[in-house]
Amino acid sequence: MKLILLLSGGLDSTTLLYKMHGEHEVAGCLSFDYGAKHNHKELPMASWHAKKLEIPHAIIPMAFMNDFFKSDLLRSGGPIPEGHYEAATMKQTVVPARNAIMLSIAAGFAESHGAAAVAYGAHSGDHAIYRDCREEFLTPMAQALREGTDSAIELLRPFVRMNKAAILKEGLLLGVDYTHTWSCYKGEVRHCGLCGTCVERKEAFLIAGVADPTDYKTRHKSCEA
Amino acid sequence: MKLILLLSGGLDSTTLLYKMHGEHEVAGCLSFDYGAKHNHKELPMASWHAKKLEIPHAIIPMAFMNDFFKSDLLRSGGPIPEGHYEAATMKQTVVPARNAIMLSIAAGFAESHGAAAVAYGAHSGDHAIYRDCREEFLTPMAQALREGTDSAIELLRPFVRMNKAAILKEGLLLGVDYTHTWSCYKGEVRHCGLCGTCVERKEAFLIAGVADPTDYKTRHKSCEA
Repeated sequence: MKLILLLSGGLDSTTLLYKMHGEHEVAGCLSFDYGAKHNHKELPMASWHAKKLEIPHAIIPMAFMNDFFKSDLLRSGGPIPEGHYEAATMKQTVVPARNAIMLSIAAGFAESHGAAAVAYGAHSGDHAIYRDCREEFLTPMAQALREGTDSAIELLRPFVRMNKAAILKEGLLLGVDYTHTWSCYKGEVRHCGLCGTCVERKEAFLIAGVADPTDYKTRHKSCEA
Repeated sequence: MKLILLLSGGLDSTTLLYKMHGEHEVAGCLSFDYGAKHNHKELPMASWHAKKLEIPHAIIPMAFMNDFFKSDLLRSGGPIPEGHYEAATMKQTVVPARNAIMLSIAAGFAESHGAAAVAYGAHSGDHAIYRDCREEFLTPMAQALREGTDSAIELLRPFVRMNKAAILKEGLLLGVDYTHTWSCYKGEVRHCGLCGTCVERKEAFLIAGVADPTDYKTRHKSCEA
């Protein structure tokens, strides 16, 4: 199947890229420069993998989200909270309707390029605070994209019932080089090791039982912190 | 109810603005500069009405649609076809997933600004070629936006079972000045009078039985042309 893949440059979507590259025709990778504090760190990671696999990569400029949307993930928002991903404070990092926007653009892009599907790396660990990673959102969203496009674009989300550690294990079997992925929401020189997505990243490597190659600024705090 | 309204500057969304302004709190109007040939003609119309009603108006720049999407409605596409709206050639003016993209952005904008709903002027006449104006699309899209946002953003589409003539009649009762609306897809100095949306505009005034104030370049061809 010819598809367009949403590639953030993080652990999940990068793993999805290698999985889909083996199973389907990935006609293009799509990333979004939407004003997140870590866009300048994750987008080059996305480009690195697309280039390695010789897949066209488009980065969609969406500065309007930074200008008009409220979220601490954005440069226009407050500081990134620290602590576990599921902590109430991490809710501040939700960007309203972000995934609906990205999936809709990807569907239009897919139809414009003769692809039949969009592939997206939502996983079960995302669900607690990110409403737009859950099947309750994804099932109607997939139906809307199917009904709303002439070629009935499908939405593939093979990781939706997997956790991050399981995704990581699959990626290691596929030979993914995770040194070229970025998670930290702060977007500083190194992964901070303290924000929700850093904690989740550490936890995934720990649970998967493999060495974590990430260069964290603060490594010593455990994932239970 | 506090809502965000999608305002193109055309006949339908302008009527919707006046209707919603009377019934709810329209906290903002949202337009999109997405590379359509007629954006430079319709966006000033949208601004005119927002200013008249003293409602904040944001225009979202989406040049990427012109760059990456395939449609003759876009500046990057072929010429606008002439003839009736339902003609097969008019399909070339569909912009893939356009409404899913706009509705998703509007939902994120609404949530960011404390609004509870998005209002959208899809109507029954749009359905033949525009899949993303039909309830088959709008029902799951509404569900996705409700499930995918923290404040369960609602999607209001009060015109979805009305035709353009009925909308026009309602707008005239509301005092809408239709000289400040733009339909023509060609985006030239005057309405061409020959493209699908000009034909549909003429037809609506004819069926509604009211004088058409539009300055068409070619007025003599009947709506059955």
